[in-house]
Amino acid sequence: MRELLLIGIGVGDPDQVTVQAVKAMNTADVFFVIGKGDEKQELVDLRTGLLAEHVTHPHRVVDIVDPPRDRTPSDYRGVVEDWHEKRAALFETEFAATGEDVGAILVWGDPALYDSTIRIVERVLARGNVTFEWSVVPGVTSVHALAAAHRTVLHRVGEPIHITTGRRLAEGLPDGIDNVVVMLDAHCTFTQVPGDDVHIWWGAYLGTPDEVLVSGNLREVEEQIVRVRAELRARKGWIMDTYMLRRG
Amino acid sequence: MRELLLIGIGVGDPDQVTVQAVKAMNTADVFFVIGKGDEKQELVDLRTGLLAEHVTHPHRVVDIVDPPRDRTPSDYRGVVEDWHEKRAALFETEFAATGEDVGAILVWGDPALYDSTIRIVERVLARGNVTFEWSVVPGVTSVHALAAAHRTVLHRVGEPIHITTGRRLAEGLPDGIDNVVVMLDAHCTFTQVPGDDVHIWWGAYLGTPDEVLVSGNLREVEEQIVRVRAELRARKGWIMDTYMLRRG
Repeated sequence: MRELLLIGIGVGDPDQVTVQAVKAMNTADVFFVIGKGDEKQELVDLRTGLLAEHVTHPHRVVDIVDPPRDRTPSDYRGVVEDWHEKRAALFETEFAATGEDVGAILVWGDPALYDSTIRIVERVLARGNVTFEWSVVPGVTSVHALAAAHRTVLHRVGEPIHITTGRRLAEGLPDGIDNVVVMLDAHCTFTQVPGDDVHIWWGAYLGTPDEVLVSGNLREVEEQIVRVRAELRARKGWIMDTYMLRRG
Repeated sequence: MRELLLIGIGVGDPDQVTVQAVKAMNTADVFFVIGKGDEKQELVDLRTGLLAEHVTHPHRVVDIVDPPRDRTPSDYRGVVEDWHEKRAALFETEFAATGEDVGAILVWGDPALYDSTIRIVERVLARGNVTFEWSVVPGVTSVHALAAAHRTVLHRVGEPIHITTGRRLAEGLPDGIDNVVVMLDAHCTFTQVPGDDVHIWWGAYLGTPDEVLVSGNLREVEEQIVRVRAELRARKGWIMDTYMLRRG
């Protein structure tokens, strides 16, 4: 292994990859697929379809089965650290076993936003047992897929935007935050956000044929979103959703 | 005009457009280019090159010369409102004059982040003189181009990220913000951010052959960035830069 490419591939639509990503994918001799077993089969199929549609360069696919992870830890950061280290060790083993020149890892969305791949590559390099060049190809995130689907901007003129997690939203927002995008929220934390003057733009399965959108005054549509989300989740067995809130 | 497409095209590299954007561009009969006269020639050339590289569908290009805008207003929001209304009126005239079926506007980065095109289209529709369907194609932003160029993540594990402007940064950040990306900062406002434990990742002309990156402890590299930025700006006559700060 002489080079490793971390490639952002958008949020679901196979056409949401950039031309840069397609070119990078066509230099790869081997694709490492992490999280096999943990990942939903539909997402695995979406990625397989993406490779089939865009990649003509001969390549093989190496599955890296994820180490088990405590999903409801008391020490969240400690558990994540431990899990990253285990992932790094698994990666290292696969890297060492691979004689190919160029490897690639496809990342949903963008590798810089709520994804662990960059951290794990840094750990692999820090362990010092394998060496390689590496680079990152940026991708379209669910933040922008959400805004585009709703044909809306992320903020009023000149205002800042805050991107956070359901976990953090539950702890309360910093003062003076009027525009917030929330990711990784399994608990409909928007229902805990106070105020009658909050607008919500919510979307599930963004960029896929199953995309569902709801928007409106938070107090008026929150129950609808909770119900729709539960129905969709029950029907498909999984859900990926994101939303934006704006005060005032 | 029956359909208008707002297409995010990434930050400079012609390959940073998505396959979805390329397909959308190839349905357009006319491209509206806004801001002609105000925009730097190099950016105009980059966009022209992008069309030449990716678009085979016959099309024409309509330039919309921007109305004059007060760059140092006392009433920032009021001036922006007024300028949006003038832009909307100009658009409307061009729309009405165009007999084509599908129009497109190319937007640097993503239309949802610090760009006025969506607001102006909403204004055109609100004026009620022309009607059309419209949709938005998301793009890669300078936020993600910056992170990818530096091969870094935007936040530590589970932390929020704040995206803001130089203008807002000068007013001070909300409490508890450790990760901030700053756009549209013409005044090197990072030099006003206090603390010895802040890291900066700075980048100019991201995604282009002229890309320049500097990173390090803010206090150690801030003078270097101020100097490099001034030199680059003097040499090219313009600069586009973005940076990320992280505390702790």
